[in-house]
Amino acid sequence: MSKLWQKTTNVNELVENFTVGRDTEFDAQMAAFDVLGSLAHTQMLQSIGLMSAGDLELVQRELKNIYTDIEKGNFTIEPGVEDVHSQVEMLLTQRIGDAGKKIHSGRSRNDQVLVDLKLFFRHELQQVVEETEKLFNQLIELSEKHKDTLLPGYTHLQVAMPSSFGLWFGAYAESLADDLELVLAAYKITNKNPLGSAAGYGSSFPLNRTMTTELLGFESLNYNVVYAQMGRGKTERIIAQALSSIAATLAKMAMDQALYLSQNFAFVSYPDTLTTGSSIMPHKKNPDVWEIMRGKCNRLQALPNDVAMMTTNLPSGYHRELQLLKELLFPAFTELKNCLHMATFMLQNITVNQDILNDPKYAYLFSVEEVNRMVLSGTPFRDAYKQVGLAIEKGEFNPDKTVNHTHEGSIGNLGNEFIVDNMTRLIGSFKFDAVAWAVAKLVK
Amino acid sequence: MSKLWQKTTNVNELVENFTVGRDTEFDAQMAAFDVLGSLAHTQMLQSIGLMSAGDLELVQRELKNIYTDIEKGNFTIEPGVEDVHSQVEMLLTQRIGDAGKKIHSGRSRNDQVLVDLKLFFRHELQQVVEETEKLFNQLIELSEKHKDTLLPGYTHLQVAMPSSFGLWFGAYAESLADDLELVLAAYKITNKNPLGSAAGYGSSFPLNRTMTTELLGFESLNYNVVYAQMGRGKTERIIAQALSSIAATLAKMAMDQALYLSQNFAFVSYPDTLTTGSSIMPHKKNPDVWEIMRGKCNRLQALPNDVAMMTTNLPSGYHRELQLLKELLFPAFTELKNCLHMATFMLQNITVNQDILNDPKYAYLFSVEEVNRMVLSGTPFRDAYKQVGLAIEKGEFNPDKTVNHTHEGSIGNLGNEFIVDNMTRLIGSFKFDAVAWAVAKLVK
Amino acid sequence: MSKLWQKTTNVNELVENFTVGRDTEFDAQMAAFDVLGSLAHTQMLQSIGLMSAGDLELVQRELKNIYTDIEKGNFTIEPGVEDVHSQVEMLLTQRIGDAGKKIHSGRSRNDQVLVDLKLFFRHELQQVVEETEKLFNQLIELSEKHKDTLLPGYTHLQVAMPSSFGLWFGAYAESLADDLELVLAAYKITNKNPLGSAAGYGSSFPLNRTMTTELLGFESLNYNVVYAQMGRGKTERIIAQALSSIAATLAKMAMDQALYLSQNFAFVSYPDTLTTGSSIMPHKKNPDVWEIMRGKCNRLQALPNDVAMMTTNLPSGYHRELQLLKELLFPAFTELKNCLHMATFMLQNITVNQDILNDPKYAYLFSVEEVNRMVLSGTPFRDAYKQVGLAIEKGEFNPDKTVNHTHEGSIGNLGNEFIVDNMTRLIGSFKFDAVAWAVAKLVK
Amino acid sequence: MSKLWQKTTNVNELVENFTVGRDTEFDAQMAAFDVLGSLAHTQMLQSIGLMSAGDLELVQRELKNIYTDIEKGNFTIEPGVEDVHSQVEMLLTQRIGDAGKKIHSGRSRNDQVLVDLKLFFRHELQQVVEETEKLFNQLIELSEKHKDTLLPGYTHLQVAMPSSFGLWFGAYAESLADDLELVLAAYKITNKNPLGSAAGYGSSFPLNRTMTTELLGFESLNYNVVYAQMGRGKTERIIAQALSSIAATLAKMAMDQALYLSQNFAFVSYPDTLTTGSSIMPHKKNPDVWEIMRGKCNRLQALPNDVAMMTTNLPSGYHRELQLLKELLFPAFTELKNCLHMATFMLQNITVNQDILNDPKYAYLFSVEEVNRMVLSGTPFRDAYKQVGLAIEKGEFNPDKTVNHTHEGSIGNLGNEFIVDNMTRLIGSFKFDAVAWAVAKLVK
Repeated sequence: MSKLWQKTTNVNELVENFTVGRDTEFDAQMAAFDVLGSLAHTQMLQSIGLMSAGDLELVQRELKNIYTDIEKGNFTIEPGVEDVHSQVEMLLTQRIGDAGKKIHSGRSRNDQVLVDLKLFFRHELQQVVEETEKLFNQLIELSEKHKDTLLPGYTHLQVAMPSSFGLWFGAYAESLADDLELVLAAYKITNKNPLGSAAGYGSSFPLNRTMTTELLGFESLNYNVVYAQMGRGKTERIIAQALSSIAATLAKMAMDQALYLSQNFAFVSYPDTLTTGSSIMPHKKNPDVWEIMRGKCNRLQALPNDVAMMTTNLPSGYHRELQLLKELLFPAFTELKNCLHMATFMLQNITVNQDILNDPKYAYLFSVEEVNRMVLSGTPFRDAYKQVGLAIEKGEFNPDKTVNHTHEGSIGNLGNEFIVDNMTRLIGSFKFDAVAWAVAKLVK
Repeated sequence: MSKLWQKTTNVNELVENFTVGRDTEFDAQMAAFDVLGSLAHTQMLQSIGLMSAGDLELVQRELKNIYTDIEKGNFTIEPGVEDVHSQVEMLLTQRIGDAGKKIHSGRSRNDQVLVDLKLFFRHELQQVVEETEKLFNQLIELSEKHKDTLLPGYTHLQVAMPSSFGLWFGAYAESLADDLELVLAAYKITNKNPLGSAAGYGSSFPLNRTMTTELLGFESLNYNVVYAQMGRGKTERIIAQALSSIAATLAKMAMDQALYLSQNFAFVSYPDTLTTGSSIMPHKKNPDVWEIMRGKCNRLQALPNDVAMMTTNLPSGYHRELQLLKELLFPAFTELKNCLHMATFMLQNITVNQDILNDPKYAYLFSVEEVNRMVLSGTPFRDAYKQVGLAIEKGEFNPDKTVNHTHEGSIGNLGNEFIVDNMTRLIGSFKFDAVAWAVAKLVK
Repeated sequence: MSKLWQKTTNVNELVENFTVGRDTEFDAQMAAFDVLGSLAHTQMLQSIGLMSAGDLELVQRELKNIYTDIEKGNFTIEPGVEDVHSQVEMLLTQRIGDAGKKIHSGRSRNDQVLVDLKLFFRHELQQVVEETEKLFNQLIELSEKHKDTLLPGYTHLQVAMPSSFGLWFGAYAESLADDLELVLAAYKITNKNPLGSAAGYGSSFPLNRTMTTELLGFESLNYNVVYAQMGRGKTERIIAQALSSIAATLAKMAMDQALYLSQNFAFVSYPDTLTTGSSIMPHKKNPDVWEIMRGKCNRLQALPNDVAMMTTNLPSGYHRELQLLKELLFPAFTELKNCLHMATFMLQNITVNQDILNDPKYAYLFSVEEVNRMVLSGTPFRDAYKQVGLAIEKGEFNPDKTVNHTHEGSIGNLGNEFIVDNMTRLIGSFKFDAVAWAVAKLVK
Repeated sequence: MSKLWQKTTNVNELVENFTVGRDTEFDAQMAAFDVLGSLAHTQMLQSIGLMSAGDLELVQRELKNIYTDIEKGNFTIEPGVEDVHSQVEMLLTQRIGDAGKKIHSGRSRNDQVLVDLKLFFRHELQQVVEETEKLFNQLIELSEKHKDTLLPGYTHLQVAMPSSFGLWFGAYAESLADDLELVLAAYKITNKNPLGSAAGYGSSFPLNRTMTTELLGFESLNYNVVYAQMGRGKTERIIAQALSSIAATLAKMAMDQALYLSQNFAFVSYPDTLTTGSSIMPHKKNPDVWEIMRGKCNRLQALPNDVAMMTTNLPSGYHRELQLLKELLFPAFTELKNCLHMATFMLQNITVNQDILNDPKYAYLFSVEEVNRMVLSGTPFRDAYKQVGLAIEKGEFNPDKTVNHTHEGSIGNLGNEFIVDNMTRLIGSFKFDAVAWAVAKLVK
């Protein structure tokens, strides 16, 4: 198939393989969003007199058919077709003739890719939020269920203070809620319309960018057209940072899980089907899922740096390697969603050890508790401290192992309801409904 | 000076030098915030009966005196004193006796550091926002001033389309506005109260964490105490990501500047005092400031990765190396503020070349413009394209060099007013006033 | 197919998909090396009495058949088969019965993977060296060919001193030679035998590790079995660092190329087939190949950090996520080899502008030259400097544009013969022949 | 003090503070090496007729005096003096008059810095090797001393197989030896002479670069002058990679130490003076030294990426921000040397638990051992496996806890002598004597 930029001579095949690479593979994932962009763009073209009402009707009808096909899984980029835009245009032209070619007026390949990416990222970020919410709910449920089961709290990996499964599960829930602040920032930066920026310097056509902004459900525009182009690479880096934050939370949880599954801790366990082992090493319960999750999430933690390394010191304006960022970002969404899903699944099957603190190695956990108890009963701190120290020295320390923590966020007062409220409010800030409504209107 | 955790044996000096390192140097920067924390904490202690009204009065008066001294620059951590907390406690005890020792009740060193860091970071983030706003305003001013001066727009570093200084300056302004979305997320995550989390597992004292939250002007709490501790390292990483986003904008601008100052572009110039040169190479105007800025900002772009590398795979709970993150974060704020300041200063002195597009190498910039002009006058696109192509081939292409771009964000319609509105709204979201009001109340 | 570690219950399919991931895809690339490992291991087993001479004969014959099949491309890991080791064992058992199962004696899955990876990496590093040598030769050829063609040398992106294409091409050749020092270090670390380390703690069988070391052509052993296991992740990181060094050289060259192709420099050009353009922007020669190369190589520059992030803070001993490093390393070899190949190909087609320095903007290039010339003729430096400065000020500077640099490595004395000698010696240090000889003996 | 490049107008002070930054602080560390460079350069200048014999004698005598002052600690860069080169020149000129100014002939500031850096890095790398060797020796000593003390070996953090302290200590020794392969590569790349490359494009003076190469004890030259300049940033990145490899070994050891000191493992302990604790938590032995070391080393692991981020996509030729790399590299040497020193010190004081494997949770460690033992006695593998499995199932598994591993690198045959031989050979490859001899000759 011919390309617009093709000169009389053919581009060397070696060159083409090298420069196109795996691009069509990723382009296929943007197909639905490319059609959405064209649906909005052509409505706008007609409104400013660059497309006739008749052509618009043809184009809209057929674009909606293609959209339906994509939704049904009936869409591929055919061999020899350069990218998703060419494939859509080819289908259109086959079906409605020359009118199909007019969808390119007032657009450059550059802003078409930009808007496709923004719509795709917006969609993926929403899915990430939804998977995060599921894991959050699972963690809150476990936190409430096991709020009275104690485990040792560590500092410096040394046994330090009483903690609880309620605290442990709840901490990761609250961590996910904070992570969503970053996802929200990334979402806001993503959810702005670059369409109309053409090759990064705007167009001499009297485009109505406000109109496409509304039609596509964007919250606002990337106004400045040079900035709209500059957003490529930047949007990816910021999204990668947002994903890396969730990944960091998961990776830390996975490390805790692998440690707590070790025979040296034995705080949690899982059904045999979810770990791997050996019939002659019956104690072995290898936490493969958590290890793989830790690895995948640490890979994601390095992702923002990968994006930065590829874009640093590039002057303003488009550069071809920006295309390669798809290879970094697209699989990252899938990996993170899978990790969130697997974490939820594993936690549905976790068993927590009810009887941890009876082990004598945890006896001194309660020494600070004991001092505080005496202080609250009126003993001056230094006296209480000395008495407990002496008891320990003489081997006569026999602590009361009940824990009576009452302040906000402590063992006896987890405050999960406030954490849930905060999460609910945050997810509301994304205003996913407004996007869904705009998209539905565009394709109906 | 003795330390609380000191055993009968002295800690080996070699060990102390290695583990304490440069920590007191950074601690000194947190002094004012440590006092703020103690002002709030002691009010709360009195409210729950852990400090007498008399002691509170003494402590508050003297803490305010110390705060004033710090503000005046009359505060240092004395040799042999381990950290800022010990220095403040020592001063208090020297002045008001044993009452001074009571400020530690219901707190651990861990949550005291956590709250100091949060207050310090909150303060620094505000300063970053203020410096960013100044640079933003400078860029908008230049964008408006030079909105009619054209320069070539590049794609692939190839001369592509007409651009303008209005677009170029404005793009970086809008970029800074988007960067602040990330800073806002970091600010929100920072502006939550960890005080009361003790060593990361809460306290058996009936602390009122909601009260200290309000007194310190925090927007909310880190509820879960395990999460409050987990926030160390995470807060730093997210702040580093926010700083890196501004840094990326500056670094790109610096690269453009260095390029545009080259004799091969010659788009901008600066007074001799702001560049370096040589009397026998009179053409040389080395853009040292922009190069150093590019370097410093690329260093900042690597910062989030540094933080991640130091915290990855650490299980939950405090680990001593978290202290080292100060060495990464504290200078980063200073560097970024300096860069923002220098960028503003340099741009106040920039001269833009008014006469760039007369150079024949930029003639073909207008070929797409010419095609579009013909299309708007009724010529079908393919005919217009062919005519312009032929004219170029015959050497008869003589374009009209006026540019008539009218859509939102283009050369003739920069939309700076919307970009400014967006920036104003964003800065308002930080609610710096509420913080200032709370702090003023605490120290008055 | 059943797995050795399988318990009575089946491992949940979801878990399996998540943990196995793309592993079989990469395993297929190790097939030949897995067979080599088994050929050596079984010879050793027989020598220590753990395999009969008869079984050995059967096993060797059939392993060599499988090796031939792999070489011919007739090998795949069948659906449901977990990994390459299982596939090879299954084929063996189908063909020679129970003898096939004995190849696992005295080995664990862990050291089998370790030795496969080492053999694979060793092979790939050799290919990288070979592709690097081709590019090196191309650069030296161009350096010699264009040694008399001058171009401006830049500092701070400012026109500074006369340079030449001889210097420019030669610099990248010498850079590649230095890069190979790092590749050699990575090769030496790779080329040590981990076989016999079992699960990382050795074996109670009287294995002869020296024998397998010699049979497989390794230069030495990873002696300590705990270290042999610890080498996983470490070997990958060091290889990634070596690859990143070549990548950094290529990326810098690609940046120079993209810049020098810009209309603002116009130092080099390429046939239309190797760039992309537009018929109405006839000046446009987009350097897509160099841009993609820059992007791919900058991606490779971030690779060592990705490996480090995934392995940092893992305690000693095997962890499942180490498997994921294949996803990072395996494609990296392919990418780098492709980049080296494309760079060589592009340079075969480069045209250099013979007439650059006549442009008046490069006049002052020669001011330092002029001063030096006067100094060599006896004028004191300060006088010469003043005279040239005055001439420039009066607009009377009319430099002699011949360049007479004679010292080692300068325009007139490139020293390419020494650079080539160094490269030849370095490549000799790899001793690829010894490896080829051992492998040939094993499979003959 | 005036600067050579100073124009009639003074460089704005703000600009100077921003661009010079902390540079003089680092420059002071290069003083001795700057003098070495000048000693060699001036001998060469005289040999080619650019300096009189009389001037040379004056200059050499006074440079040697300055060198002695530096060695004695009597050298500072005075306020207002821009850099170390200016300070040395100023001292020279104060003492011997105009002859002192002639040391700049045939040199640019650029190659002067380059050679200073190379000499400094070469020196620091030698010190790193020496500290590494000390730690290596300590580890080998511990490995031999504790070769019969068993501890559990883990895979997936699950108790897996018997290991030993001999293996554990020895593994880190062998790891350090492999790390030195990378340090050797970095050393070779460093130990090449850039002097004579001037501003990166060579000189029209008939310099004898081979002569300065020999005088300064360099193994070879950076021949191509453009490459000599290109080595800045590249040398730093490769050195950072070499340091990061040692750091990765230390960080992993530190993680093991922190884990093994936890009450949940209790494999090792240290005197109270080397850990921190609390009198009411007598069990607490916080491994602060190992945690700080882990943090510092993980920071070093991120260093190569920091260098790469600052240098990526810079076209060839000098750029001012290269100066900032000193801020990254100089402290890194100090940090790594301190970490190596502290690790050696801590290990001199380690106590290993002799009685670990009696704990019942480690019983199944020996199941594979038992199967192998039966196989070696003639029982077919599957039968042995089944018998052991059944015994375990019935609770009748009562393993023989002696370990009889005999192969190279296993518990009973550590092979430390080969590891030591390898280390000795490697350190010999650096040929530090040749450098010491050249330097001694230059300053005598």
